Order: sequence, then structure tokens, then C-alpha cells
Amino acid sequence: MIFESFPLCCGPEKASLDKDLAKLGDCVVNLIYSLARSIARDKPDGGKAPNEVLSQSLKDAGLRYLAPSRVDKHRLGDVTEAIVAYAWLEEKIKIEESAIILSRPLSKVDFENRKEVWRAAEIGFKNLLITISERMDFEKSELSGNKDRN
Amino acid sequence: MIFESFPLCCGPEKASLDKDLAKLGDCVVNLIYSLARSIARDKPDGGKAPNEVLSQSLKDAGLRYLAPSRVDKHRLGDVTEAIVAYAWLEEKIKIEESAIILSRPLSKVDFENRKEVWRAAEIGFKNLLITISERMDFEKSELSGNKDRN
Repeated sequence: MIFESFPLCCGPEKASLDKDLAKLGDCVVNLIYSLARSIARDKPDGGKAPNEVLSQSLKDAGLRYLAPSRVDKHRLGDVTEAIVAYAWLEEKIKIEESAIILSRPLSKVDFENRKEVWRAAEIGFKNLLITISERMDFEKSELSGNKDRN
Repeated sequence: MIFESFPLCCGPEKASLDKDLAKLGDCVVNLIYSLARSIARDKPDGGKAPNEVLSQSLKDAGLRYLAPSRVDKHRLGDVTEAIVAYAWLEEKIKIEESAIILSRPLSKVDFENRKEVWRAAEIGFKNLLITISERMDFEKSELSGNKDRN
């Protein structure tokens, strides 16, 4: 892992519920999102990945089962953030590779149209989460993600 | 550079004034800060680097001259963010190395004491900016940074 100087609590399923890891993950995810927007727009750009997008992409990637039932989009967004942080710290994925995956659907959108941007970002994050899940030891039998890479 | 797929406007002095680059830099700086806090606290953590800290570290590193005169701490913070983003995109510094530099003064602080955290972060960002400036082609004659690494 990138930093053995601070311990991760546990394996990937439990880590995905770790709120401290989600705090770090918030920054990892926002950098990936900003870099993806920069690639898609062909100029430096920044933005915060919305919880609506992160929660929907978790469901679309077939990883909703990692979160507790009856939680809101903020908590689901935290789970996405914790998963991405864990994968990055464990060197299963790099920021640059993640941004390239996310930039693909974003490259087609009108950035003035927020709905269009969010929908493309949902697809991009879904693809990122599927890529991560293929490299991690989540309980495979429970995966049911749509692997169609848009 | 990391992404040749989107162009940087210009050399490092002009880039430091680029507001789009500062938007991307905001995310780079926050990830470095969060990772540094994680290392210092020995557990995952997240946080936003305050403009007060970023603007003071720019002055302490002897790089205040890169910003226009009579601008506020937000604009000075933008300059720090743009410099860090530029250095990262140009592969002069990695996120992991930056976080280790920043974590050193943070490792001694009481995280319940905001003033203490900010002062340590100022020293850490100053050291990061000095490291970056040594690897970039800023106008060296105008550098007057205090190189004392705390």
C-alpha cells in the first residue's frame, strides 16, 4: 500500500463503511473528478463530485450491498469515497488511470448542462467502481454490476 | 507531464496566476493535506487546507512575488494551489512525497488545537513550496525563502 505509516482498519468490505476513510476518499474522488473534467474539457478544471452521482454509481456498479440498508445518498456517497480511497491506498488503482476512465463519458457532454454532466459522471464512476471491484476481494457472488463500458 | 491530453497555458510564473489551474490545484492541495493529516494522526483523515495557511506559506517560501500586489488571502491561496497543481502535472513532485513533507511538522501537533494545526501546516506547505521551487524554473533571483526545514 502507498502508506504503511498509517493503518487501514480492515478488509475492503468493512473499510467501505469507515467514515474516516471516507473523509480521505472525498479528496481522492474530487481530484479524480477534477482531473477527468480537465481531460474532457481540454483545460484545467475543478469540481466536487456530487453525492447524487456517487450514490447512483455505487448502485449501478452492483456494489449497493456493501452499504447498510435504509441509508441516504450522503452515506452511499461516503461508501463510494471509502472504496476509492482504499483501492488507491492499496495501489489497486492510480489517480491518473481513474481520471482517464471517468473522462471517457464526460468527453461527450455539454458542460453547461448540469444534468448531462451528472449522468455522464454516474457512468464514469460506475465504470471506475467496476474496475476497482475486479481488482479487489469483494464478495464476488454478490456482484451484479452492468459491465457495459460507455 | 502527467496529462498531455490537456494543455497548460504557459510557463510556471504565468501558470501560477491561472484560475482554472487553481481550481484543479484546490483538489490536489486538499488531497496532499488530507494524506499528510492521515500520516501524522496514524489513521485516515480528511480536511480542507485553509486559505490563511496557503497564503502565509506562499509568503514564507519567498514566492509572494509571483502574485499580483494588493490581493487578498483567497487570491494568494489560489496561487499556491496553481503552483502545486503545475508541479504535479509536470511531474516535479508526487502527491505521496508532498504529503510526507507536509506531515513532518504536523506529526507534533495536538489536532484539537486549530491554531497549532494551522501553524504546523504553514511550515509544511512552506517546505513543500520551497522543494517545488528548487525543481522549477521560477525566476531564481527573486527567491528569498527561508529554507529552514522545521
